Amino acid sequence: MNFMEKLKTRWQSANSLLCVGLDPDMEKIPEHIRAMNNPIFEFNRGVIDSTHDLVCAYKPQIAYYSAFGAEHDLTLTIEHIHKNYPDIPVILDAKRGDIGATAKMYAIEAFDRYRADAVTVNPYMGGDTLAPFIDRKDKGVIILCRTSNPGAIDLQDIESNHEKIYRIIAGLASREWNYNKNIMLVVGATYPAELAEIRAIVGDIPLLVPGIGAQGGDVEKAVKNGITRDKTGMVINSSRGIIFAGSGKDYTDAVRKAALTLRDEINLYR
Amino acid sequence: MNFMEKLKTRWQSANSLLCVGLDPDMEKIPEHIRAMNNPIFEFNRGVIDSTHDLVCAYKPQIAYYSAFGAEHDLTLTIEHIHKNYPDIPVILDAKRGDIGATAKMYAIEAFDRYRADAVTVNPYMGGDTLAPFIDRKDKGVIILCRTSNPGAIDLQDIESNHEKIYRIIAGLASREWNYNKNIMLVVGATYPAELAEIRAIVGDIPLLVPGIGAQGGDVEKAVKNGITRDKTGMVINSSRGIIFAGSGKDYTDAVRKAALTLRDEINLYR
Repeated sequence: MNFMEKLKTRWQSANSLLCVGLDPDMEKIPEHIRAMNNPIFEFNRGVIDSTHDLVCAYKPQIAYYSAFGAEHDLTLTIEHIHKNYPDIPVILDAKRGDIGATAKMYAIEAFDRYRADAVTVNPYMGGDTLAPFIDRKDKGVIILCRTSNPGAIDLQDIESNHEKIYRIIAGLASREWNYNKNIMLVVGATYPAELAEIRAIVGDIPLLVPGIGAQGGDVEKAVKNGITRDKTGMVINSSRGIIFAGSGKDYTDAVRKAALTLRDEINLYR
Repeated sequence: MNFMEKLKTRWQSANSLLCVGLDPDMEKIPEHIRAMNNPIFEFNRGVIDSTHDLVCAYKPQIAYYSAFGAEHDLTLTIEHIHKNYPDIPVILDAKRGDIGATAKMYAIEAFDRYRADAVTVNPYMGGDTLAPFIDRKDKGVIILCRTSNPGAIDLQDIESNHEKIYRIIAGLASREWNYNKNIMLVVGATYPAELAEIRAIVGDIPLLVPGIGAQGGDVEKAVKNGITRDKTGMVINSSRGIIFAGSGKDYTDAVRKAALTLRDEINLYR
C-alpha cells in the first residue's frame, strides 16, 4: 500500500487525525530510561506502545536524533512501528531540499535508509528540487507552505500581484507538483485563516498541521478551517504536549491520556 | 578565530577563492579505496591532502553521507581537516531550516557534533528560524538566496513591487540578519546577472557560489560579477569536476591538477 492509501485507511480505522511527533529530548526523558541502552528508542517505544490505537501517523523530527548521533535510535524507532503497527504511516520530518543530484541522496536517506513513508521538504529551491522526492510515487512528499512560527510571514506573506507566496506554493503544489497524487502541504494551526484559504485552493490534498499545544494553535479553529468535505484531510501533529506529559516510571499513562484527550478534542470538531 | 576571520585570512594566505565540495559517491570512488575501511573518508583524505594548499575552504554535502549511514566518515573527514590544516574553514552544506527549538538542534548537529565552521541554511521559514544559527556568532551562516538550479526561478524570481524574492532575501540578510557579521549568501554561478545584482545589494558580504563545472556556470562571468572591491568576497565551489577528475590509484594527481587549474582560472579574472 502506498503512503496516501495507508494514511486514508488509517484515518478511518483509528478514527483519528492525530499525529504524535517523536521529538525526544534527553533532558526531559524519565530518569529510569536514561540509564538504558538506546534510551531515545526506549522512550519512543513507550510512547508508541501506549498511543498506537489513537494516531493516524507518527512523525519523528530528525534533528533531535542527528544532533546527538542517535541515528540508530531513529532506525530502531521506525522499525518498531513498521513491525508492530504496520498500518501506521511514518513521516520523517526533515525539511530537506537541494539540487537534483543531492535531493536524490536525501530521498535515499528518508525512504531507503530510514524506510519512512513520507518526508517533509522545503520548496525554496523550486520544482526540479522536489521531483526526486515526488518521483518516488509510493511515498508521500509534504511541502512547506505556511509554517507555524511567527517569522513565517517574512517570506511566505510577501505578495505578488495580490497573491501571497504561501498561496502561490499551494497553487503550484496542487496544479503542477501533484502528478503522482502523493503531495501534502504543511500549514500551521497558529494561522487558522490561512488554513482555510489554503484548503480552498488545494481541494482535498491532505494537510500536515503542526502548532497545536506548545506553539499555541487552537484545535477548534484548525479543524473547522482545515477539514475536507469527508471530515478527513488533516494530520494534526502534537509533539511536546504529548510525549512529555509525564516524567516518572508511569510516564506512558500520562502520554496516553494526553493523546486520547487531543484525539477526542479533534474529533469533537470534525 | 571565528569563521569569518578564518575565511578572510585564508583567502590571502592561499591566494585562492576555490572551495572543494566533498560529495563522495561510492560508485565513482576508485576501486582500491572501496576495499578499505571507511572508504568515503579515505577517498576524502586523498582529495584533501592533494589540494590543501589550493583552497580557501572545504564543503562536505551531508546528504552524500547520511544517505548511506556514513556519519562516521563525515566526522573523520572534518577532524582530518581541523587537525592537519587548522586554517582551512569547513562548510557543512546541509540547507537546514525549522522552527526555533528544532533549528537549535540542527545548529548543534552542524557546529557541535560535526564541528563545522559554517553551515548552509534555507530562509523559507523566516528570520526567527535562522536566529539559532546566527546567534552562534563564531560560526558562519550561509543563507540560500539565488540557487544554481533551473527551477530556482519558480519561487526565487517571483516579483513583489518590482522586487524579486532573491533580492528581498539579499536585502533582509544584509540589513536585518547580519547583526553578528557572520552571514554569507548562496548565489549560483549559473546566473551571473543575478550575481552582479546581489553583489550590489549586499556590499562586501561574502558569497558562496556553486554551479561551476558540472552545472555549467562560467568562471569569468562569475568572478567578474561577484568579486568585491578588494578582489575577494567569494567562495567558489566545485565538487564533481574536481573530486572525480581521476579514477585510478593515482586519482589524487588528477584531483590536484583539476583544483590547480580552476584556482588559477579564477585568479586570472580577479
